[in-house]
Amino acid sequence: MQDKILEFLKKKEEYVSGDHISHRLGISRQALWKHIQELKDDGYDIIAVPHLGYRLISSPDRLYPFEIRSHLDTRFVGRQIHYFDIVSSTMNMAMELAMSGAPEGAIVVAETQTKGRGRLGRSWVSPKYKGIYVSLILRPNIPPSAAPLLTLLAGVSVCEAIKDFTGLDAQIKWPNDIFIHNKKAGGILTELNAEMDATRFVSMGIGLNVNHDKKIESLHATSLKEQKREDVSRVGLLQELLSRIETNYLLFCQPGRQAGWQKGTSVIIEKWRNYSLTLGKRVRIAYQKTHLEGEAVDIDADGGLLIRTDTGTVEKVMSGDIIHCR
Amino acid sequence: MQDKILEFLKKKEEYVSGDHISHRLGISRQALWKHIQELKDDGYDIIAVPHLGYRLISSPDRLYPFEIRSHLDTRFVGRQIHYFDIVSSTMNMAMELAMSGAPEGAIVVAETQTKGRGRLGRSWVSPKYKGIYVSLILRPNIPPSAAPLLTLLAGVSVCEAIKDFTGLDAQIKWPNDIFIHNKKAGGILTELNAEMDATRFVSMGIGLNVNHDKKIESLHATSLKEQKREDVSRVGLLQELLSRIETNYLLFCQPGRQAGWQKGTSVIIEKWRNYSLTLGKRVRIAYQKTHLEGEAVDIDADGGLLIRTDTGTVEKVMSGDIIHCR
Repeated sequence: MQDKILEFLKKKEEYVSGDHISHRLGISRQALWKHIQELKDDGYDIIAVPHLGYRLISSPDRLYPFEIRSHLDTRFVGRQIHYFDIVSSTMNMAMELAMSGAPEGAIVVAETQTKGRGRLGRSWVSPKYKGIYVSLILRPNIPPSAAPLLTLLAGVSVCEAIKDFTGLDAQIKWPNDIFIHNKKAGGILTELNAEMDATRFVSMGIGLNVNHDKKIESLHATSLKEQKREDVSRVGLLQELLSRIETNYLLFCQPGRQAGWQKGTSVIIEKWRNYSLTLGKRVRIAYQKTHLEGEAVDIDADGGLLIRTDTGTVEKVMSGDIIHCR
Repeated sequence: MQDKILEFLKKKEEYVSGDHISHRLGISRQALWKHIQELKDDGYDIIAVPHLGYRLISSPDRLYPFEIRSHLDTRFVGRQIHYFDIVSSTMNMAMELAMSGAPEGAIVVAETQTKGRGRLGRSWVSPKYKGIYVSLILRPNIPPSAAPLLTLLAGVSVCEAIKDFTGLDAQIKWPNDIFIHNKKAGGILTELNAEMDATRFVSMGIGLNVNHDKKIESLHATSLKEQKREDVSRVGLLQELLSRIETNYLLFCQPGRQAGWQKGTSVIIEKWRNYSLTLGKRVRIAYQKTHLEGEAVDIDADGGLLIRTDTGTVEKVMSGDIIHCR
């Protein structure tokens, strides 16, 4: 109901009569008044003037479910929203929800995380009301070995959403970092829960520095605000992101020849190549106790990075920390 | 303390003086009496005679942690035991425990399960006090793609334990069923929780029909009791199983050339071949909507089954339901 009331108030920058709203929504004047009070509690600045009605002065910068859902053009991604002002980690929460049967497309959104996680148990700094910290539950009918492709899919979707919504050129540092002008602006964490031969669910986590002010994280990080020199609507960007993810995911899941996941992968990989910051670079990969150095020449059909070493052999790497040497 | 008291009582088939036990264990006579009452509540038939002491008449057939731990020869497998008289599913419980930080080697044991799970969400019938229903938490430093090998490892360990403890010849029907004399006696369910490139934990579930009476499950199932024509100690078999798993797991985890998991795998695969019921057979595999028929010729380094079709091509299958045609 709150979203519908807001829709009326947002339509015009003037007073809307309470009679009009309550009549159109089929609720009593008293019920309307109660909803307005709740919206005010949520941070919406709404004034009420007798005989004129209600008027929305300003909206808070919050990722409220009814804001996200409003005009969201997806079929299932983001249709079930679990919103938290504060959460330990959206990934942990998504995992719990998925285990207890949350549907494909359900998302966990938080304004801040106390134990935000990055790859390999690293922490993810999540200043309140500044970023997008979202985890998405997917239940793809793919073998677990195909799951790394979903990290690529997420990266592509993030770059597309940023480009579309802000005009900024984002790139992907293999496997999961989002860069803008050679500075880190986000990351992707994809976790898998699977039987040996069947994926039960995937939790796709995305952390984006949106309205972070300069240097809050480190000298090598940036935010969309810093790059664009103005605040970016987190709700709008998130909606664009959810929409892009759904489009790419449906592409990815197109029935293919064998296991139902092969046809769409080439499209995702092709898109990924275009956004790659890594391909063509000289890189050094640290994986556990080994190192590998060479030129990142391509990415292959299951998401592995192909490195041509100085001896001319091409090695495939599925994981590891990568350093761009030059 | 209960395990220590039982050790005294089990040592001799006669009365042991309460003074002797309480003195050796450094507890009061009253504390000893309280522990004895608890043991009696747990189903131990212990009689007390003034001036003679305590005597153990019989032990209940239960998988109590102190029974499992007693004389268990492992370093970490089964050292932390979560025991339940009844649980929804040992797999779900292990998953929760692993998420909240349970150490490698921790096990969940239950006397019965209300929602025991088999592969692909199928149910697993778990009559009370009859079988072994156990889930083991492992935290191997392997890429998720290597995880199917742990299913093979579990199968090998189960066959070794059954052979050692009962003398029965168990075999493995690829990928995860335990057969004795061509009838199903158990199954393995391995679930994985991973980032794209790093395994967070594996939950290895084993269900074994131990003292099930004939035909309780289906005409095609059997139990160790039915095959051996006598009751089998579940505690003893579980201890042997935990020991075998640890030995094979340490072998599997031996540092190898690259990712730390390659050296031991060949040993596991070689053992697996010896226990295989599938290799050499004509098989039909149903996977999603496709079928594949041919001879099961071998298993490869990552646990996939190699099938030579009638046209002579060899195809590799990572998953699916398999039918032995003849």
